[in-house]
Amino acid sequence: MIKYPDGREYTPNKHKIKLTKDEISISSSNRGMAFEDDINISNEFYFAHGIALITKRPTPINVVHVDYTNGPHITDAYFEKQSTTDYNGIYREKYIDFEAKSTKSKTSFPLANISRHQIEHLKSVIKFGGIAFFIINFNRCDETYILSAEQLLIFIKENKRKSIPYEYFKNKTMRVAHGYIPRLYYLEAVDKLFF
Amino acid sequence: MIKYPDGREYTPNKHKIKLTKDEISISSSNRGMAFEDDINISNEFYFAHGIALITKRPTPINVVHVDYTNGPHITDAYFEKQSTTDYNGIYREKYIDFEAKSTKSKTSFPLANISRHQIEHLKSVIKFGGIAFFIINFNRCDETYILSAEQLLIFIKENKRKSIPYEYFKNKTMRVAHGYIPRLYYLEAVDKLFF
Repeated sequence: MIKYPDGREYTPNKHKIKLTKDEISISSSNRGMAFEDDINISNEFYFAHGIALITKRPTPINVVHVDYTNGPHITDAYFEKQSTTDYNGIYREKYIDFEAKSTKSKTSFPLANISRHQIEHLKSVIKFGGIAFFIINFNRCDETYILSAEQLLIFIKENKRKSIPYEYFKNKTMRVAHGYIPRLYYLEAVDKLFF
Repeated sequence: MIKYPDGREYTPNKHKIKLTKDEISISSSNRGMAFEDDINISNEFYFAHGIALITKRPTPINVVHVDYTNGPHITDAYFEKQSTTDYNGIYREKYIDFEAKSTKSKTSFPLANISRHQIEHLKSVIKFGGIAFFIINFNRCDETYILSAEQLLIFIKENKRKSIPYEYFKNKTMRVAHGYIPRLYYLEAVDKLFF
């Protein structure tokens, strides 16, 4: 029997409990959020150590109605599609810009997860001399990879596939080391890839 | 009698029509929006000409409730304070970050318009090797100036004033040339100040 360091019993079968459709959707969206939280914590860590200044762009929201009766209160609004990326900032005096994605798939990363706008935006970042990439988490095996925007563009050009195989990430992209705090040492992978 | 080029009569007194309190507030907020629009158009112009990639950060909104009955619809949310700045991006391969402010005052720019968070953020931008500034519009005389974050920090250190006099902008900061499209050639002022 495998035990956690605090003595609790580890039950591998727990991961195999059948979830309802709703539970799966909540669970995967939570995992997506957890990945985002991990990146935010890494960014706080890098900032506190004077390594990088990277901020998350707020989610764009189209505000339709604001009630001013008791101070501004939004009562009608919609989420808009992010036309750029989730994160940008400055690292080693360079402009850095990236999109974070998490996938439940064990075998491949579906390209439908990336919008045309985001690819165009990252193309522009490269053109203007910045560093552009995707940080992609396979949440079932909890592995994280850095895929440069250049690499993605080449992949799309050379393949007709609608997804990038997991093996491609394993063999051709830069793996992000996981730690305790922060969980993701992603700038170390960026160093190897871009500097 | 002064006339517009199209023959319409120019009435200076029109600007002196007394507005109600609400009209003033709408009018000044529209002016603030117009200034933001001008910057957005400048950014589109600079991007289209391969000069710079500068994007506006969306307004951060704290979403309290989303109704999923007919697709996600936000029914309860609040504006959050921007903890960073309005704009950032890449120019001449450098990270650039700035805050845009518009003031109705003819005589000075009130420092209350700038939050402590924004000053701290721009301090960090300088520390990490980026370009940090404020673009400030005196909307009554429609003059626009670039005030570097360094300059603001020195001003705050050396003065106990709660506002920066208009004369200070006129004599010690970089004026932004106004044109037709775009209205603001602000990167030309950035060139003179930072490069």
